[in-house]
Amino acid sequence: MIAINGYKKKRGETMKRNTKVSTAVIRRLPRYYRQLSELQEAGVVRISSSALGRSMGLTASQIRQDLFCFGGFGQQGYGYKVDSLKEEIGGILGIGRGHTLVVLGTGNLGRAIIKNFRFSGNGFRLLAAFDVNPAVVGTEIAGVPVYHADGLEEFFSAHRVDVGLLTVPIAAAQEMGDRLVNAGVKGIWNFTNYEITCASREVVVEAVHFSDSLLALSYMISQREGPEEELT
Amino acid sequence: MIAINGYKKKRGETMKRNTKVSTAVIRRLPRYYRQLSELQEAGVVRISSSALGRSMGLTASQIRQDLFCFGGFGQQGYGYKVDSLKEEIGGILGIGRGHTLVVLGTGNLGRAIIKNFRFSGNGFRLLAAFDVNPAVVGTEIAGVPVYHADGLEEFFSAHRVDVGLLTVPIAAAQEMGDRLVNAGVKGIWNFTNYEITCASREVVVEAVHFSDSLLALSYMISQREGPEEELT
Repeated sequence: MIAINGYKKKRGETMKRNTKVSTAVIRRLPRYYRQLSELQEAGVVRISSSALGRSMGLTASQIRQDLFCFGGFGQQGYGYKVDSLKEEIGGILGIGRGHTLVVLGTGNLGRAIIKNFRFSGNGFRLLAAFDVNPAVVGTEIAGVPVYHADGLEEFFSAHRVDVGLLTVPIAAAQEMGDRLVNAGVKGIWNFTNYEITCASREVVVEAVHFSDSLLALSYMISQREGPEEELT
Repeated sequence: MIAINGYKKKRGETMKRNTKVSTAVIRRLPRYYRQLSELQEAGVVRISSSALGRSMGLTASQIRQDLFCFGGFGQQGYGYKVDSLKEEIGGILGIGRGHTLVVLGTGNLGRAIIKNFRFSGNGFRLLAAFDVNPAVVGTEIAGVPVYHADGLEEFFSAHRVDVGLLTVPIAAAQEMGDRLVNAGVKGIWNFTNYEITCASREVVVEAVHFSDSLLALSYMISQREGPEEELT
């Protein structure tokens, strides 16, 4: 756990690379960031840990504990300043580092993400998309150029690309993942529903599994339905 | 926490509806189910808690603790039987209850999900899709009929629909969410990136936020990059 205290304050000092924060806290950070963005847009200047907790389904003590992991920015009796807390958390999440990204695969899902996902709001610049379909190679989707997948390595040698988003068919997932790793990507955002094996321990793979979300929903509605017997 | 022990064994008894299991455990259950499905496909019959843990990035004691919440199916020294553990967890998740679902919105994302997502593998039957676009109303997507959104309530009065999947534009999200609730849905699977307000406490809303996933990835690659200074 812990120990990114003073992350921004102690500039000059080298941060320990193996700093361990629990996965659960890491998973909540983006939710804090999202919630604080919404509060900021709604014009809220300060918020107490209990009000922030209510809006996120967490207890006030949970909130204080989480945020303490990252330096404890609250002020007793005054709550948290929304804009500075948002900025601090954004800094921890790496927003503002100018991360870049390319999309591999422009099927329905790839196209939906390119058109609708707010990459810039999450600190990412979408540089290009790659596909093998001659009908889309050479076109643009929402202003993003689509290149042939053959040109992937050449593109990487000319641009710093931090993340590759995979939305290729399952049969191509491992191969394209390998090529991303060899091309020097830092992270793979995997939407293929295929668990790719990553040859490099330096590369982070983050998978989006729609089924995990649907099954959590299934669990919650099943709980409300009561025992299986009642339904049938 | 806890206390679904004997969930399936004590048939006839009414299960307590307010059974509390920590959110973190609930969120891990679908991952167990997914992992066990893959093991089963790979022909693995038994697995120890430590091997299961390794494959999921969890400790053996974490695995034992999680599964104990649901009745502790393991056998000291013999590990877990893959097929029966999968079946038990599937039962807890509500797979096998015959849950049904409709999709609202057949843009790129809706279309991608209808075409590619394995609803049946998660125990759901996709009954229909709804849209307002005259170009798609009356057609089928991967065998799923697309009806006009005006007919939503009529459809619900003729079919038991447990879940509504929202992929409509943000401007229509709240209205369509309200209509789903009024029509008697048990859960809303929200892909709109708009936090809908749910009038009924009986309805579960599960949102898929791509940004939470990208920001977690951003955090992890930022950790490996080290302090911001080194990058610029």
